[in-house]
Amino acid sequence: MMAVQDSMDVLNGKWKIAILSSICYYNKRRFSDILNDVKGISNKMLSKELKELEINRLVRRTVLDTQPISVLYELTEHGLTLKTLITHLVEWGIQHRKEITKK
Amino acid sequence: MMAVQDSMDVLNGKWKIAILSSICYYNKRRFSDILNDVKGISNKMLSKELKELEINRLVRRTVLDTQPISVLYELTEHGLTLKTLITHLVEWGIQHRKEITKK
Repeated sequence: MMAVQDSMDVLNGKWKIAILSSICYYNKRRFSDILNDVKGISNKMLSKELKELEINRLVRRTVLDTQPISVLYELTEHGLTLKTLITHLVEWGIQHRKEITKK
Repeated sequence: MMAVQDSMDVLNGKWKIAILSSICYYNKRRFSDILNDVKGISNKMLSKELKELEINRLVRRTVLDTQPISVLYELTEHGLTLKTLITHLVEWGIQHRKEITKK
C-alpha cells in the first residue's frame, strides 16, 4: 500500500505523466516543445513541475548555449524506469476510452 | 499523448490508486475496510471517490442485507484490467524509494 502512495506522490498532479510522456517519447525535448505537447499547461506551471521531477531525479536539465538559449530535458536513468509504466498507462487509456464510449 | 491524459483523468487525485489497490488486493472489500487501508482519507471523501470510480465502471457496489448493513466493493471486469498497471506502480514505488533514499 505504501509503495503505491510513493509512486503516486511522484506522478500525481494533472501534468506530471503528460510531461514525462512528452520527454520520454522524444528522448530529449526542449522546454518550448514540452509546452506545446502538454495541452493547457502554463509556462510557470511547467517550470514548477519540471523542477519537482528534477528533485525526484527523474529528469535532467541541460542549458544549451544557443541563440536564443535553449533548455533541454531528458529522462535520467532512473526516469527511464518509468517507460514501461507510461506505455501501460497509454494502452490502458485507449482501452478505457473504448469501454466508456461503448453503450 | 491524449491516451495518457485519459488514464490520468481517471486515476488521478490523491486517493484513486490507493483505493483501487485496496480493493484489488482483497478482491472484495467493505467500505469500512477501505477506509482503514487508505491512510488519511475521510469518510466523505472515500464515498465521493468510490462514486467516481463507479461512474467510470471500474468498481461495482453491492449492499449486503446484514446487521448492520455492509457495503461491498469489487473491481468490475474493466477495473481488473488495471491490475497489471497497479502492480507496476507498486514495484516502481519501491524502486523509487530506494533511489531517492540512497546518497
